[in-house]
Amino acid sequence: MFTRNAFCAAPVVIAREHLKRSSPACLLVNTGNANAGTGAAGIRDAEQCCAALADQMGCVPAAVVPFSTGVIGEPLPVEPILAGLPDAVANLSEDGWAAAATGILTTDTVPKGASRRISINGHSVTVTGIAKGSGMIRPDMATMLAFIATDAAVQAEDLQACLSRAVAESFNRITVDGDTSTNDACVLVATGAAAMDPPAPGDEHYETLCATISEVCVELARAIVRDGEGATRFVTVAVEQGVNSGECLQVAYTIAHSPLVKTALFAGDPNWGRILAAVGRAGIDGLELQAVQIYLDEVCIVRDGGRAPEYTEAAGQQVMSRDELTIRVVLGRGASAEQVWTCDLSYDYVRINAEYRT
Amino acid sequence: MFTRNAFCAAPVVIAREHLKRSSPACLLVNTGNANAGTGAAGIRDAEQCCAALADQMGCVPAAVVPFSTGVIGEPLPVEPILAGLPDAVANLSEDGWAAAATGILTTDTVPKGASRRISINGHSVTVTGIAKGSGMIRPDMATMLAFIATDAAVQAEDLQACLSRAVAESFNRITVDGDTSTNDACVLVATGAAAMDPPAPGDEHYETLCATISEVCVELARAIVRDGEGATRFVTVAVEQGVNSGECLQVAYTIAHSPLVKTALFAGDPNWGRILAAVGRAGIDGLELQAVQIYLDEVCIVRDGGRAPEYTEAAGQQVMSRDELTIRVVLGRGASAEQVWTCDLSYDYVRINAEYRT
Repeated sequence: MFTRNAFCAAPVVIAREHLKRSSPACLLVNTGNANAGTGAAGIRDAEQCCAALADQMGCVPAAVVPFSTGVIGEPLPVEPILAGLPDAVANLSEDGWAAAATGILTTDTVPKGASRRISINGHSVTVTGIAKGSGMIRPDMATMLAFIATDAAVQAEDLQACLSRAVAESFNRITVDGDTSTNDACVLVATGAAAMDPPAPGDEHYETLCATISEVCVELARAIVRDGEGATRFVTVAVEQGVNSGECLQVAYTIAHSPLVKTALFAGDPNWGRILAAVGRAGIDGLELQAVQIYLDEVCIVRDGGRAPEYTEAAGQQVMSRDELTIRVVLGRGASAEQVWTCDLSYDYVRINAEYRT
Repeated sequence: MFTRNAFCAAPVVIAREHLKRSSPACLLVNTGNANAGTGAAGIRDAEQCCAALADQMGCVPAAVVPFSTGVIGEPLPVEPILAGLPDAVANLSEDGWAAAATGILTTDTVPKGASRRISINGHSVTVTGIAKGSGMIRPDMATMLAFIATDAAVQAEDLQACLSRAVAESFNRITVDGDTSTNDACVLVATGAAAMDPPAPGDEHYETLCATISEVCVELARAIVRDGEGATRFVTVAVEQGVNSGECLQVAYTIAHSPLVKTALFAGDPNWGRILAAVGRAGIDGLELQAVQIYLDEVCIVRDGGRAPEYTEAAGQQVMSRDELTIRVVLGRGASAEQVWTCDLSYDYVRINAEYRT
């Protein structure tokens, strides 16, 4: 799955193309340069890197899937990448996940990995993934790179369906700053090494595998938010009793993107009026304040059109001092619910993004 | 004109109601408390203040139009407002604009006023306005309070049409942080003191008056952005050659709200890849990078799907060092154009909003 940014990067264009023409044999990832907004030269550069790696791996160039992340608009420095390939190939290893997780970081401060071992019909199956991403995070698909692999045997189209579900519940439910990158990509590979029959969609084993893949994706997605640029708090925004999923997400993202809510979260200030104002401006037709309830974790702050009578500043303050908390909005209009994960907006977000590149 | 936030404040509810029932005689404005999210008690509090002022002014309560701005969700402190009324009434003065402009400030750092004197059909006519607002600024109508008056004679409905046009071109084209307040209000009063015949919509005099009112509103709106919380740069985002006004505004606001673009503006960093990524994620169907051009003032940075060949970092840097600059995006799809005004995102925005209230 790749970014839906209309100006997707050269490696995204090439990766899509290569996946159509061949089954993938290697993933080639560089950081420091996004190879986006680089026109025809960017396409040529990405192809040159793929061809060079294909040579050394003894596969066709289309079996190499390229990924780039970093500064947008600078020409890809092809020479250092080509120069680094022989070492990378020489050091390929089945347990190289941790080194790869570290190698793909940019403004991230910690590597991000997740793994699960499950049993499917008596066969041991492993699902392992790594991801990077810290800023320009509002995936759609996902503003980041994530690589997940399993030794399960699964049909390609069933695996794609698994990934779509997993991404919808994980990478597509996080936001750091609302900025969707040009380079997002998430890859799920199944080697089929486990001596099992491929499970069919709908059967119990398929559901188990999908759920496990979702779990790994959710753990990686939450790790990205936790390591969001300058983040000091991990915040779940849960919206319930909406008419449909769309309006729940609209309210959730309006809160999650509000600079005023995010700076109050940074300050640990239960300034819930900013949450209320964000819900009110989310563009939901016919929304009635009278029906809305807002909670900070277990503390009800808004009910019956105003501040809950039992609410105290001390109770709100206590929740806001937590490293992890949930803002829960009950719309009182329907049966849909959604949640997104986000972080606060701190001095360090400004510092990191004012200093990055220059 | 009032906020379109679904959870509008008690004074907004009362003001709308009063304007239906009476012609306005006084505007009652308090700062420090928004009287929003305050339920039935907030309505009673606002009405009590209006009734007290009406008593002292010898008018009906419905002739008093209330406005509040400040913290959301705290009960309105009615006592100090009532206690202050006799002094306020005693000091009413025809040239009190400057004192009023100062009195309505909250996180603003400078008072904002604008005035024009024009001649209509041989009659001298004045249009004067004041406004406040600095954060929670993404008017829809307008996240702020603005009060504009003229001595022109105009029919009420023609005056309302004038105001709608003026607000669309001014307060509804600015954004500091994308947060639309619960308390926005903009008032235009015509006293009719100028001994002129009311001009009719469509005739030359009406157009002159409307244009002047727009000019005053634009000057006030730009002053709000210039005094945006923590703002160090004034930025015009101009989008041209869109299919319609809607998609131009969508692109313009996506850029103007992007935390990554705003922090790059703060740093004076010509990190145009962030502008490109924002255009790409604005959700415009069928947008082609090949057709898009992006400029920083006179410097073309993107053309033909990538960086303009003549672009130099030094040229970009030079523009970004200016206190005022224009980001211009040419979509190459149609004949529509729109512009919005915004500012950068600095440490001080975070400081002001992390410290405000606590």
